[in-house]
This record gives sequence, structure tokens and C-alpha cells, in this order.
Amino acid sequence: MYPLKLIQNRIIAAFGSEQFLNEPIKLYEPITYTLGQSGKRLRPVLVLLSCDLFGGDIEKAVLPAMGLEIFHNFTLLHDDIMDDAPLRRGKETVHKKWNDNTAILSGDTMFVLAYEYVAKTDPGLLPDVLRLFNDTARKVCEGQQYDMNFESQTNVTIHDYMMMIQLKTAVLIACSLKLGAIIAQADPVEAEKIYAFGIELGLAFQLQDDYLDAFGDTAVFGKEVGGDIITNKKTFLYLKAFEVASPDDLSRLDHFFSNPEIEASEKVRGVIHLYENLKIDQYTRQEIESHFQKATVILDGLSVAEENKEEIRSLALGMVGRNR
Amino acid sequence: MYPLKLIQNRIIAAFGSEQFLNEPIKLYEPITYTLGQSGKRLRPVLVLLSCDLFGGDIEKAVLPAMGLEIFHNFTLLHDDIMDDAPLRRGKETVHKKWNDNTAILSGDTMFVLAYEYVAKTDPGLLPDVLRLFNDTARKVCEGQQYDMNFESQTNVTIHDYMMMIQLKTAVLIACSLKLGAIIAQADPVEAEKIYAFGIELGLAFQLQDDYLDAFGDTAVFGKEVGGDIITNKKTFLYLKAFEVASPDDLSRLDHFFSNPEIEASEKVRGVIHLYENLKIDQYTRQEIESHFQKATVILDGLSVAEENKEEIRSLALGMVGRNR
Repeated sequence: MYPLKLIQNRIIAAFGSEQFLNEPIKLYEPITYTLGQSGKRLRPVLVLLSCDLFGGDIEKAVLPAMGLEIFHNFTLLHDDIMDDAPLRRGKETVHKKWNDNTAILSGDTMFVLAYEYVAKTDPGLLPDVLRLFNDTARKVCEGQQYDMNFESQTNVTIHDYMMMIQLKTAVLIACSLKLGAIIAQADPVEAEKIYAFGIELGLAFQLQDDYLDAFGDTAVFGKEVGGDIITNKKTFLYLKAFEVASPDDLSRLDHFFSNPEIEASEKVRGVIHLYENLKIDQYTRQEIESHFQKATVILDGLSVAEENKEEIRSLALGMVGRNR
Repeated sequence: MYPLKLIQNRIIAAFGSEQFLNEPIKLYEPITYTLGQSGKRLRPVLVLLSCDLFGGDIEKAVLPAMGLEIFHNFTLLHDDIMDDAPLRRGKETVHKKWNDNTAILSGDTMFVLAYEYVAKTDPGLLPDVLRLFNDTARKVCEGQQYDMNFESQTNVTIHDYMMMIQLKTAVLIACSLKLGAIIAQADPVEAEKIYAFGIELGLAFQLQDDYLDAFGDTAVFGKEVGGDIITNKKTFLYLKAFEVASPDDLSRLDHFFSNPEIEASEKVRGVIHLYENLKIDQYTRQEIESHFQKATVILDGLSVAEENKEEIRSLALGMVGRNR
């Protein structure tokens, strides 16, 4: 088995050696800008780890894995227009640095690029690979729509929220793992298992992201705490707080979330304080743990030598904050 | 050979029997709205005609053909945001009826749908089909970028313009024809020929559209004359006029195109009058005829029984206004 670090470096090298700039420059410059930013490259790393787990040749997985990373970055690019986000990974978003039209069209082009890379696989595997990717891409769009719907919807339940993050985030994690399995020509039953593992891991991963927004260490998390609180985002924390709050706490929560005139840092401090009183940190950690445990049970059940699972297990632990 | 009318009806029936509405409604409603509008369905009709021309089973081409129509409508949807267009086929555009975010995300979802339908083909043909579609989709995006670039670019040549419409319009016409050929398992050399035919036909078709904007009969054309003139669009007509104008005519053209205070109908009348004096109608018809002739020569050279070419020949004639 390849060590995680080696696989991460393989993906970084792959992006480093690829040339995305092309004519017309105005179309490809924002793509080069976006793909040149060194994110965690989590999804392609998962593709290679899974391919390796099932005994496949990771070199055959590199280009399709890049396709998933390009797709992920395309969704961020369009999401940033829709959310009017100014920054992404500490840098100006494409629609701010250029404009909305550029972000729309460069995004569309990245979507085509994603398909081009995903398709760089053994022709015999293409029908399965394409079916998986189409299904995933559709679900991610549906998840983004639910996410936008929830902004103005007043009766969002935790169940609704979990369904939304499954579509918007978890299916792409699951797709990454299953893509690696398909390329390794794993048994289809095992491929479904690693997909199910990815769904649970993806849910835990998104909940961890929600958790860090309120309870993260800025230095570790890499972004300011409280972004979700400032924008009234209906995360697991928010929904759980409204679910368990006493009438008094409810009116305190309402006070912070319904008065736009409250200064941002005061709002963040006040809400986090309420969350702590309501033990939202503990509820969230329990929920993360529950999904992580389900993921672990599925991984344990995979018909693959235990020692082969070590790298994926270690990455998964990192994704839910267990290595900090 | 199936008559053109029958093939058109087959495509209309296919769209009529397909259900695009799904959850979340807000995502799929604009898609249903867009795909429910009865355009000419030109691209899927070309797929079936070409498939039939090469002796293929048109039923095998119906779903992939729908994919190209869905793709075409996706590009219109995103183009309408970028151009801030209020109307499309006489109805409100999606970004006006809903909003920009809806148009972006429903468009993205239509793009996935397009891939899903295009992929509904014999698995053995999938690599070729997907390569063709990816290549086409990328070029259409590049064409749209050049089109936007030209708005602010002062030194656009007719050569630049022809390159742009080749990417933005002609390659999808060519792709439609080649897709039909691939599904019919035509000889690859013949498939390339029908692609080349489609490029020339597509160029003639776009020039015909430019021509009708100035010299069309509103009743036949279905939209008001002069839209391109009002928006200073650098069409073949505009570029040719600036190329052949005398110094006096140049200053007259400049007068109309550089004074935003001139009333729209006066501008349209004035520019069309200048175009007529400069024989731009004749130059344009010559250019259309030249590309149509090239297309005809390629069609003549296809190794297919002459009588099989009749339906495509008749549709092609209609596309360049020869049946009016």
C-alpha cells in the first residue's frame, strides 16, 4: 500500500504538471487561477487511496481523480456566485476578481474539463464511471438547491439538513471512493460498500466543518470562527439548538438571529455561549461520532486485508478532527 | 428513408413523453419550462436524419439526440444570463422569470441531464460519443467567450467572426450529424465528412440568421428586425459594412453606432439603408451561398445512395432560406 503522503504528493504533482491555460485566455485564466490554488485535494486523494485499497494501479486513477477535483472546484466557483462570496481559500473568488459572466462561463468550461478527465479511463469501465459521475453531479446540484431553499424556509428539520449535506457533500466523497474501486475493478458489492462508507464519512466530515465554525481554533481551522452564525446558516448546530432550547433560550437565540443590527463579533460570542450552555458541542460531536462509527463498521466489513485499510482509516480520522 | 416530417414528429413526441420534473421543484421547474418550449428541435432532428442516412436505427439515436437538444438549451439559458436577455422564443427567460441563481443552477443541472441522455447509447460506442460531445461542449464555451470578448474589442475581423460562429454555432450542428453517423456505425471517414458538411452548413445557417436580422420579414423570421443593429453586435453584416464603406459611409455608420441617443427604430432604418447602399445583403448572400456550396460538395461526395440524401438536402436548404 502506498502511504497517504505519497498519494497526496502524486496528486499535487499531477496538477502541477498539467497545463490548463489555453485560448481564449479570458476563459482559461480563471480556470488556471482556481485549479492552481492548493486545496487539500481530498477527493482525488480518496480516489487513489480506494484504488490502492482494492489492489488497482493508482496510475490509472490519476486522471479520473483529477476530474473529480476539477468538478469540485467548478461547483465552488458557481456556488460562490450564488452566495456572493468574496473569498475562497483566502483569495478573491473568480466572480469578484473578474465578474459573474466570467465565473459562469469558466465554470461551465471546468465542468466539461471534469468530464474530459473523468473519461480518461479504460473504455470498458466508461459506462460505469460515467453513470456514477452523472448521478453524483446531479445530486450535488440538487443539494445546492436545497441549501439555497433552506435560507428562506422556516421549518427546516435536522432530517432535512442531513439529506441536504448528503447530496451536496457526502455523495462526492462516496463517488471518489467508488471511482477508485471501479478503476481497481473491485467486486461491485465491495464498491457499493466503499460508497456507503463514503456517505457516512462525508456526513461526519460536513458536521465536523459545522462544528469547527463555532468551536474551531482559528489557527487550525484556517478561517475565522462564526461565519455560519453571522449568516444565520441553518447548520446542524443551529437546528439542534432550536430543537433543545428552553423557552428562555429560544428567545435568546431569536434575539441574536433576528436582529441584524447586532454587531457580528457580539453575535458570534453570544450564540457560541448559548450553544455551550445547550451542550450543542457535545450533541454535534455525538452525531459526528455516530456517523464515523457507521463508516468504521462498513470499513471493517470490507473483504480486504486489514493492513490495507490503514491509510484510509488514518485519512478518515483526520477528516473528523481526531488527529488534532 | 424516413421523411423529414416524420423525424421531426418523432423528436417532438420524445420530448412530450419525457418527464423532467423532479424534487427539488425549484431546480426542475425552470428545466421543464425551458425544455417544454417548442423550438425547432433542429439539432436532434439532424442526429436522426444522419443516423438514417447511414442506415442506422433511428430509435437508437432518439435519447442521445435529446441530449444535444438539452445541451443546446442549457447554453441558451446561461447565455441569456450573460447577455441579460429578457425574452427567448417570445417567452420570459429563466433568469428574468426566476432569478440569476436559479438560472445558473438549473442550467448546470441541464448540463448533467445532457450528459445523461447523450450517454444512453451502446456502451461500445460510448468512448467515441463522449469524446465528440466533450470536444463540442468545450468549443461552444470557447465560442461564447470570443463572442463576449468581441463586444469590447475594436479590431474584430471577418475572419475572427467566422472562427467565433464556427465554435459557438457550427460545431454543434456538425456534432449532431456526426453523432448520428457514429450511432449508425458509419465508416469513420464518412462520419468525418458529415461533420465537415455540418461545419459549412452551420456557418451558412448562422450567416442566414445575421442576414434575417436586417433583411428578414418579421412575420417569417418570428422576431423583430434589427436586434443586432440596436445592440451594435459585430455580425458579418456589420464587419463587412465597415470593410467596404467609403470614408463618407464610414462616418455615417459611425454616426449610428456611436450615438446611443439615436432612437432605436431610426437607427435600424438608417443602418439597413446604408447596408443596402453598400450591397451588404448581396455580400452576405454570396457568403452564405459559398458555405452552402462547400457543404453541398461534401454531401455529394458521401458514399451513400443519392436518394438517401434527399431529406438532409431539403432540411439544409430550409436552414439557409432557400425554401421561402
